[in-house]
Amino acid sequence: MKKFVKPLLVALIFGATTAAIAQQAPKPEQIIKWRQSVYQVLAWNNGRIKASLDGTYNKDEVIRSANAIAALANAGLGALYPAGTETGKGWHDTTVKPELFTDGAKAGEAAKKFITEANELAKVANTGDAAAVKVQFGKLGQT
Amino acid sequence: MKKFVKPLLVALIFGATTAAIAQQAPKPEQIIKWRQSVYQVLAWNNGRIKASLDGTYNKDEVIRSANAIAALANAGLGALYPAGTETGKGWHDTTVKPELFTDGAKAGEAAKKFITEANELAKVANTGDAAAVKVQFGKLGQT
Repeated sequence: MKKFVKPLLVALIFGATTAAIAQQAPKPEQIIKWRQSVYQVLAWNNGRIKASLDGTYNKDEVIRSANAIAALANAGLGALYPAGTETGKGWHDTTVKPELFTDGAKAGEAAKKFITEANELAKVANTGDAAAVKVQFGKLGQT
Repeated sequence: MKKFVKPLLVALIFGATTAAIAQQAPKPEQIIKWRQSVYQVLAWNNGRIKASLDGTYNKDEVIRSANAIAALANAGLGALYPAGTETGKGWHDTTVKPELFTDGAKAGEAAKKFITEANELAKVANTGDAAAVKVQFGKLGQT
C-alpha cells in the first residue's frame, strides 16, 4: 500500500499548493485588466472634472469625482504592478513604462506625489471654489 | 455680402454645437468601457477583502478596499447607464440587465441599497473587526 500513499500525498500537497496559489495570485492578464480598468475609471472622473471646469461648474459632481480619484490613489495601486506584468495583455497590450518596474524609488516617489495631489484635490473640491479646483486639478495632471 | 453671412453663422453655430456635443457626450462604446472598468475595479477590491476574510486579516488593506468601493458607489454611477448603452460593446459585449433601463424605480432602489451597504462597509472596516466586516461584506454582496 505504501507505494500508493506517497503519490497520493504528493498529489494532495501539490493540489493544495496550486489551489492556494490560485487564490492568492491572480493571473497577470487579470492584474493588467484591473490596472487598465483603474486608468479608465480615473479618466472618466478626470473627464467629469474637466467638463465642470470648461462648462457649467457642478460642485457635487466635482466632489464625487475627486473623491473617487482620491480613493483609488489611496487603494494601494502598487499591488497592480507585480513583477511579471511589465509586458502582457489585459484588455489590450499594456503600455506601462518599464521604469516603473526597474526604478522602485522613482515609482514610489511618483505614487506618493499622485496620492498627495489627489487628496488635496478632494479637499479643495469640497470648498466649491472652481478657480482653486482648476489650479489643483492642474497639479494632479502633472503627477 | 449678406448671402455669405447666413451660411457662415449657420456653420459657426453648427460647429459650436457639435463641438459641445462631442465634449459633453462620450461615445456609447467609451461609456460601456468605463462601466465595465468600474465593475473590474470593484471586483479587484472585493477580491482583496475576501482574501483578508479567508486568509490572514489585513486591516489596512480592507480599509483601502472598502473606501475604494464606497467612493465608486457614491460616484454617480447612474451616469454610466444612459439610453443607447443597453446593448453594445466596450471591452466586450455588455451584459447589463435590460431592466436597469426600463424600470428606473427598481434601478434607483438597487443603487441606493448598494450605496448604503458600501458606506456601512467602509465604516465597519475602520473598526478592524473581521467578524463584523464579514457580515457587512455579505450584505454588500447581496445588493
